[in-house]
Amino acid sequence: MNKDRLFKLFEIINSKMETNEEVPKEIIGEICAFGSNLVGLAQINPKVGDVEYNAKKIEKYIKIATDLKLKFIAFPELSLVGCPLEDAVGRFPVIAENGVKWLNRLANMTKDTTVFVGFLEPVDNKYYNSIAILRNGEIVDVIRKSSTVNPFGFNDYKYITSGHKCFVNYEGYGVTIGEDECKIVSDMKAVVNCCAVPSVSSYQNKNKEFASKKGLPYIYVNQAGTIDSVSFAGSSSIYGADGNLIARAKAFEEYLLIADYANGVGQIYNDYDFKKPESFSLDYEQELERIYKIIIQGIMDYFVKCGLKRAVLGLSGGLDSTVCAVLLADALGKENVLGVSMPSKISTAGSKIDAEALAKNLGIKYVVAPIGEMVDTTNNCFNKLFDVVESGWDCRYQKSYTMDNIQARSRAMYLWGISNEFASCIPIATSDKSEIYMGYATVNGDMSGGFAPIADITKTKLFALARWLNKNRAEKDVIPETVLLKRPGAELAIDPNTGKPLCAEDALMPYEFMDEVIWRIENKQETYMQMLYSEFVYEKNNVLTREQKREWLDKFFKRMSGALYKWTILAPAVTLEENSILNKNFRQMITSCSIDYKG
Amino acid sequence: MNKDRLFKLFEIINSKMETNEEVPKEIIGEICAFGSNLVGLAQINPKVGDVEYNAKKIEKYIKIATDLKLKFIAFPELSLVGCPLEDAVGRFPVIAENGVKWLNRLANMTKDTTVFVGFLEPVDNKYYNSIAILRNGEIVDVIRKSSTVNPFGFNDYKYITSGHKCFVNYEGYGVTIGEDECKIVSDMKAVVNCCAVPSVSSYQNKNKEFASKKGLPYIYVNQAGTIDSVSFAGSSSIYGADGNLIARAKAFEEYLLIADYANGVGQIYNDYDFKKPESFSLDYEQELERIYKIIIQGIMDYFVKCGLKRAVLGLSGGLDSTVCAVLLADALGKENVLGVSMPSKISTAGSKIDAEALAKNLGIKYVVAPIGEMVDTTNNCFNKLFDVVESGWDCRYQKSYTMDNIQARSRAMYLWGISNEFASCIPIATSDKSEIYMGYATVNGDMSGGFAPIADITKTKLFALARWLNKNRAEKDVIPETVLLKRPGAELAIDPNTGKPLCAEDALMPYEFMDEVIWRIENKQETYMQMLYSEFVYEKNNVLTREQKREWLDKFFKRMSGALYKWTILAPAVTLEENSILNKNFRQMITSCSIDYKG
Repeated sequence: MNKDRLFKLFEIINSKMETNEEVPKEIIGEICAFGSNLVGLAQINPKVGDVEYNAKKIEKYIKIATDLKLKFIAFPELSLVGCPLEDAVGRFPVIAENGVKWLNRLANMTKDTTVFVGFLEPVDNKYYNSIAILRNGEIVDVIRKSSTVNPFGFNDYKYITSGHKCFVNYEGYGVTIGEDECKIVSDMKAVVNCCAVPSVSSYQNKNKEFASKKGLPYIYVNQAGTIDSVSFAGSSSIYGADGNLIARAKAFEEYLLIADYANGVGQIYNDYDFKKPESFSLDYEQELERIYKIIIQGIMDYFVKCGLKRAVLGLSGGLDSTVCAVLLADALGKENVLGVSMPSKISTAGSKIDAEALAKNLGIKYVVAPIGEMVDTTNNCFNKLFDVVESGWDCRYQKSYTMDNIQARSRAMYLWGISNEFASCIPIATSDKSEIYMGYATVNGDMSGGFAPIADITKTKLFALARWLNKNRAEKDVIPETVLLKRPGAELAIDPNTGKPLCAEDALMPYEFMDEVIWRIENKQETYMQMLYSEFVYEKNNVLTREQKREWLDKFFKRMSGALYKWTILAPAVTLEENSILNKNFRQMITSCSIDYKG
Repeated sequence: MNKDRLFKLFEIINSKMETNEEVPKEIIGEICAFGSNLVGLAQINPKVGDVEYNAKKIEKYIKIATDLKLKFIAFPELSLVGCPLEDAVGRFPVIAENGVKWLNRLANMTKDTTVFVGFLEPVDNKYYNSIAILRNGEIVDVIRKSSTVNPFGFNDYKYITSGHKCFVNYEGYGVTIGEDECKIVSDMKAVVNCCAVPSVSSYQNKNKEFASKKGLPYIYVNQAGTIDSVSFAGSSSIYGADGNLIARAKAFEEYLLIADYANGVGQIYNDYDFKKPESFSLDYEQELERIYKIIIQGIMDYFVKCGLKRAVLGLSGGLDSTVCAVLLADALGKENVLGVSMPSKISTAGSKIDAEALAKNLGIKYVVAPIGEMVDTTNNCFNKLFDVVESGWDCRYQKSYTMDNIQARSRAMYLWGISNEFASCIPIATSDKSEIYMGYATVNGDMSGGFAPIADITKTKLFALARWLNKNRAEKDVIPETVLLKRPGAELAIDPNTGKPLCAEDALMPYEFMDEVIWRIENKQETYMQMLYSEFVYEKNNVLTREQKREWLDKFFKRMSGALYKWTILAPAVTLEENSILNKNFRQMITSCSIDYKG
């Protein structure tokens, strides 16, 4: 049989698995005829804590692996319970107990195909992060992870004890878990590593390094899918003894990778490079496809795992809501997305036209709901109330953002109203990362929602993503060019200098500059002073005085300190950067607002 | 000199320190005359990351300790940077660098009084949790904490490396940090432990155990005050060689405890017992004073450290907002609290009267702002919009909570409006723990705010606290008796059976039952089945069929699973229980909503 035919059969198997259909006998027969050297890596997409769901999934893969007479099938670290559990097991130890029950059932069904499956092993009120080896109806052996390195800060490690038997040589396979090292012994044929490494973790590239060092084939299976905001890349891989890649599964989705690595037969489905750039650049091209896939999978998983189906979002004709709408339509289906245009007095005609054009291009549902009446009523009520309050309280602002915020909050009222009134539907928070860093978003307004698709994308990257979407989706150019050319602004206030809606960059600073500050904080941990004395990309293309730079940096750090509270109440969002403020396990106290960032 | 006089002088010193006044020479002289055996424990209340602020505070205490010729003065673990830093140092290593600069300045000022001060020691991109010993202008020695036990899940430990030199015998004092053990050597006179243990941690009682085992005097100094939601008890103590308590500082506040432990001279300012009860009980009497103090300190610290001054909250005449108002008045001063009565059509006359009576009794600012107009306008706009949406979207609920929520959201609009319009003022989220567990709170409504004072108090405990406040505050009975007798309800909907506002217990289940489920989850980690087959306090006093119990448990776990999202966007609140959902470091994924709690 030629390889292409074999790979085609693997594709069929995967599509049958996805739709829970029986795999036709002939296909199984044809693959079995290929030989007895095939192995399987099942990068499953679990639900954390839902042991029955995960176990039934694993069961399905064990069954097909057995039918195909694979030598072994490996599942990710902790696959029976899902990763990360965070503190769930501390509150509900029943999760681990259920896992053990199901593990025994899984062992019962095994035959000649060896199974490596991750579970949380409860022993005397402690837990081990363990892999069970199942074969011929039995649990043949168990290894326990030794490393408690916790690069992503998961609370799981509060409960997990370091194990001593952290590798085993089972029939020539040296089996290890996650960051644990495998000791090579003489009759070992290959190393098999079961892991669950977040897509954004710098550990992502470690496996490749390990591979080249061992002098043995190196096989790893990684969790796929998204748990709340934590994406797992899948991309399970097999490297040859020479360190060269033989096979790699699809990224970010559940997949069963089958290969005959000993004979070099395997397909490479992706070549994503998770290495971070050494310096800030406005050229994001290389990472856009990956970001797109992570977010799509993130939205899908959040909705499906929470039993949700539909999303409603405000369409302002601006970049943020536009990109959100495209991503939601791709993840949920256009029929499940409702765009609501909610113009106020300040909204420009162009914005309304752009919103409608986008909705039409995408084919999503679209309604118009002007907020004028709600804003006017609220304004009236506020003015009366504020005058009464002022008689007893001092320090009323001369210039406040109260009226700006009423607009944002009236819009959120509409969106939450729709989500309360129609089943399985949540409102979307459309804030982007640059604005969240600056606190340039309204609490209970545009910041509020059940999910925040672009909260980890800075504005300059978002422009790049929008252009990428126009070029790379099946339907080209759904985003109107006018949206891409417009200077971003919330359209909540009029700029007294121009008489037009205030642009965000005029109120803040150029996005190119802001986004580089964010990048330097997250990737280089630089101080204010270090930034002041290094050259920014912005400075290469623009004249920037030291004084102006100082002013922008002052504003950045001041606004960021004031935004710490807002970060703590953000809707869930897929995390795209390791040290992101969006990562709920990467925290800064609100009362740490007086840190001296200057150094 | 008699002890009473000495203790009086210590009080004067502390009050002078608090107001930053010079301590009169005579007082210093009088204390010095007492003898040369005095030691000092300075349980400071730091700002995390604000090294200059903390260092200047430490400086002040070193100065007075030197003036008083104390043998030594000890500061808590990590006192120069504050604890917990969470991920702040991962983003801003400058914090640790600033700490080292200030440490050298502090060393410079020391004379004969030995200083033990905690700092974060940066070494080759790693950090140690260290104590520096300062004396005669020099850093004499440094020890590094070895234990990386992290009972509260702080992310600090992602950055902190375990040290090897974890104790030192300095002039007869065996100095250790936090959970580290001190090895006793022959010429040791006493053990000094510098720690920072959260008030709710079960480690709280460990120090007492250590003390009785050593056969040497045991001295520990603990951080005081609150960092966001994490309270530190202070209560720094000195135990004699026989394990008996000689001296203990005040709880939850900054304090300088001075004692001559060798001669048994020391005052005991509190005897709080942090032991948890073995079983659920509705008798909360023992813990109420402690809870009150923790919350008051928590509110004060949050406001002061964030540069805030005033709070605005809705007063519904119900228990939640009533207790919040009392706590805020005590923490911020009555002139800094504004109560807003925001009646709707559903609000009863009694509720309005109770709200006004409370405001009058407390002496806080008070205004009335009916929400009828806003609700009507929103209703109208919604009805029009929903009909349009329905033409394109299916699954409109027959019975929805949309209209209920409009009321809660209109009220939040007012409160956020006031906070946007008046300086240094934030709105208060008045939700209690029972309702948060049940998701019985409106997003962008009563759940929303800049701080949530009672979010970790269950309803039955809140009733007890209200009665305690009426009895134990200087002004008695500020809370109207009618508030205490009323059955709680949000007054957002009419009960079709009674024609009166719906009571929460009728919509949910009795609070006595609900609160015991919460207690059993947090303290006993019980499954649904374990609860079904154990006797609840509620069952001792009421007839409860197995069927009804099953129904309530079903409802509890179903509602809790649906509330996971709401927990992630809660406003900051002081955590009062170790395994509380309010603890931002004690997390459960939103997508873990299908855990099988039954077991």
